[in-house]
Amino acid sequence: MTAPQELRVDGARLWRRLEALGEVGAVHGPNGERGNARLALSDADRQGRDLVVGWMRDIGGHVSIDAVGNVVAVWPGTDPSAAPVMMGSHIDTVRTGGWFDGNLGVLGGLEVVETVLGSGTRLRHPLAVAFFTNEEGARFQPDMLGSLVYVGGMALEEALDVQAADDEARLGDELQRIGYAGPLPCPAAGAPRAFVELHIEQGPVLEDESVTIGAVTGVQGISWTELTLTGQSAHAGTTPMRLRRDPGVVAAAVVSGVRAIATEMGGSQVATVGRLEFHPNLVNVVPASVTLTVDLRNTDEELLRQAEARFQQLLSDAAAAEGVDVRQRTLARFEPVEFDPEMIQLVDDTARRLGHSVMRMPSGAGHDAQMMARVCPTSMVFVPSVNGLSHNIAEYTHPADIEAGANVLLQVVLTLAAVESGA
Amino acid sequence: MTAPQELRVDGARLWRRLEALGEVGAVHGPNGERGNARLALSDADRQGRDLVVGWMRDIGGHVSIDAVGNVVAVWPGTDPSAAPVMMGSHIDTVRTGGWFDGNLGVLGGLEVVETVLGSGTRLRHPLAVAFFTNEEGARFQPDMLGSLVYVGGMALEEALDVQAADDEARLGDELQRIGYAGPLPCPAAGAPRAFVELHIEQGPVLEDESVTIGAVTGVQGISWTELTLTGQSAHAGTTPMRLRRDPGVVAAAVVSGVRAIATEMGGSQVATVGRLEFHPNLVNVVPASVTLTVDLRNTDEELLRQAEARFQQLLSDAAAAEGVDVRQRTLARFEPVEFDPEMIQLVDDTARRLGHSVMRMPSGAGHDAQMMARVCPTSMVFVPSVNGLSHNIAEYTHPADIEAGANVLLQVVLTLAAVESGA
Repeated sequence: MTAPQELRVDGARLWRRLEALGEVGAVHGPNGERGNARLALSDADRQGRDLVVGWMRDIGGHVSIDAVGNVVAVWPGTDPSAAPVMMGSHIDTVRTGGWFDGNLGVLGGLEVVETVLGSGTRLRHPLAVAFFTNEEGARFQPDMLGSLVYVGGMALEEALDVQAADDEARLGDELQRIGYAGPLPCPAAGAPRAFVELHIEQGPVLEDESVTIGAVTGVQGISWTELTLTGQSAHAGTTPMRLRRDPGVVAAAVVSGVRAIATEMGGSQVATVGRLEFHPNLVNVVPASVTLTVDLRNTDEELLRQAEARFQQLLSDAAAAEGVDVRQRTLARFEPVEFDPEMIQLVDDTARRLGHSVMRMPSGAGHDAQMMARVCPTSMVFVPSVNGLSHNIAEYTHPADIEAGANVLLQVVLTLAAVESGA
Repeated sequence: MTAPQELRVDGARLWRRLEALGEVGAVHGPNGERGNARLALSDADRQGRDLVVGWMRDIGGHVSIDAVGNVVAVWPGTDPSAAPVMMGSHIDTVRTGGWFDGNLGVLGGLEVVETVLGSGTRLRHPLAVAFFTNEEGARFQPDMLGSLVYVGGMALEEALDVQAADDEARLGDELQRIGYAGPLPCPAAGAPRAFVELHIEQGPVLEDESVTIGAVTGVQGISWTELTLTGQSAHAGTTPMRLRRDPGVVAAAVVSGVRAIATEMGGSQVATVGRLEFHPNLVNVVPASVTLTVDLRNTDEELLRQAEARFQQLLSDAAAAEGVDVRQRTLARFEPVEFDPEMIQLVDDTARRLGHSVMRMPSGAGHDAQMMARVCPTSMVFVPSVNGLSHNIAEYTHPADIEAGANVLLQVVLTLAAVESGA
């Protein structure tokens, strides 16, 4: 008989599930890397969902699907009136994603449940494991759409009408197509007791500091803008430079300019142009239009606003100088989020009790946890990313760190769910 | 009976053929514009070729097709040993092309032949009308590929092995597919007596100067380079700015830098980045790689080399600063071409005799004529482009200018082909 505080997950079992889910929509690199392309609501996403739902049911979970495709499995506790302690994350990936981002939070949750069930430990609160629709925002914008709708931050109808950036498919239609337009209302009826998300760091800090566990204090604010710059398409050989209205030149000024803003501001400010498309995209034609996105993030709302203002200024200066028209659209705007202090403390204390090195840190990436933080006490557990890589098929986390993170998740959840009796 | 120097083309008949060919692969704009997308060796190009070959045969031309798909129709003269006076251009277009670029030189040539035949004028030299494969370079590189191979400037086998930039189709396979891999050897066995190409200016100069006819003195040198910049794909939120190796930032430096080079050098120097692609092209991912093209042109070879050297310097500086790897490939490199002085004089004199305003000017764009200039006396006749637009579905030239240019072509050709007797 194992005392609850001595319970440990089966790291090998968790690793096998990570590998198996990673086979769905696998993409392979030249150096043996194996990444994932499971864009939200694609055929590969459906396959991944089916696999995870199968595992949820295999270990006795009651699976429900809501109207925006969020999937929640629940295992009852001893108190029928108690709210569940929820774990989870997402299983969609970017086009060149890894097999840890998101997946770990979902499969780590399943591993915690299976460990608890296998030990015979009785908990007052139910346990729940969720995966949320379209966290990445790689196919549909905004990112974290499923959890945003789950907590009432975006109207269901609006979410269902979102169109894919590439193929212009409607989100609601794609949900129907892959069989994940569920019957449960969304936003959800009741809030969980708490939400805990295990995730890879996706950055280099833990590895640089040789620390195993990150107790996440909050999430950077995110500002995503899509620009459509329209100039005058013309022949590249015959149009004198002084007569050009070249949106590519304005786009270049934006790319260089937001880099300079982030470098000059320093601190947690980051700025990225990740998407950029020329039209008609021919070697001897001055582009007619250019579409690009600007991603600005800061842990401080005031500084994020400053970055946005500086970006707007450089954009309007560059566009005016070139005689280029600008249309812009906000794809996502989230203020920085601070997690519940007691929850952060619980993660910190638990990691130390288990003998792991731990540091407090903000998250540079957006996570479903920041949406859940609107409705319940929330925290995150980070484990190191090798070389800081993520959104990259070379994304990797060592098995020992995966196991360490899952054990912290397990012990945090046992505390939150109130152990009634050991096995 | 009309004296040969009084002969005039049927402008309406030429216009109708331009309109009919423009219906093949037509694309339509929001303001009623009708442009063309007939990329080289596409299905639309095949349809366009079939239409023009039909017209050639309708007016009695002997049509032959060579191994790289160039099509030449010949009408005999009185002297079986005399070399033909050749007219022509191309009928492929860019993806958002107009219905005058190239087409006018081919259909203008047909109109000249039909006018001569209809008048009963007998000429010592045969007349020929040609259209050359893949002049635009929009699908296969280099541009002017067909005429380049025709004059022996590129090996046939090399040309047939060229792969399309987009779909990676092999040029030789596409020729077979559309039925234009002809039996005639290429390069051609004998040189024409002369080559004359009627073309729209594709720039704003004639319109700005209120001049009807441009007597083209030569063609700018062209330097096309494709760059593949490889950095490190990473998460846009979690990767500190100081650790980034972002090829998009280097690409932006190239776009801004070549614009600055052209502006500072002045004169005929132009510089364009027309194609630019991010990979994986996602809003929240620092790009792993960026592919872009740089198009540099100057009428002076020494200055063009200076522009190339400055571009290389800024590229290596920007890449080194960001830790980004550079691969580059020359897609096309042609030295400036000067046309035959007597041929230029003939165009100039003929236009004046016909009562048109005329100016001498270099061509900013590349043309098949610059390849033909390697093997025979060559010149070009330019007519104005409305608003200087080309490679644009709004490309337009007024019917009166079309007719004026075709009459200059007719009278130049009558002089070159040596009239034996009028009708």
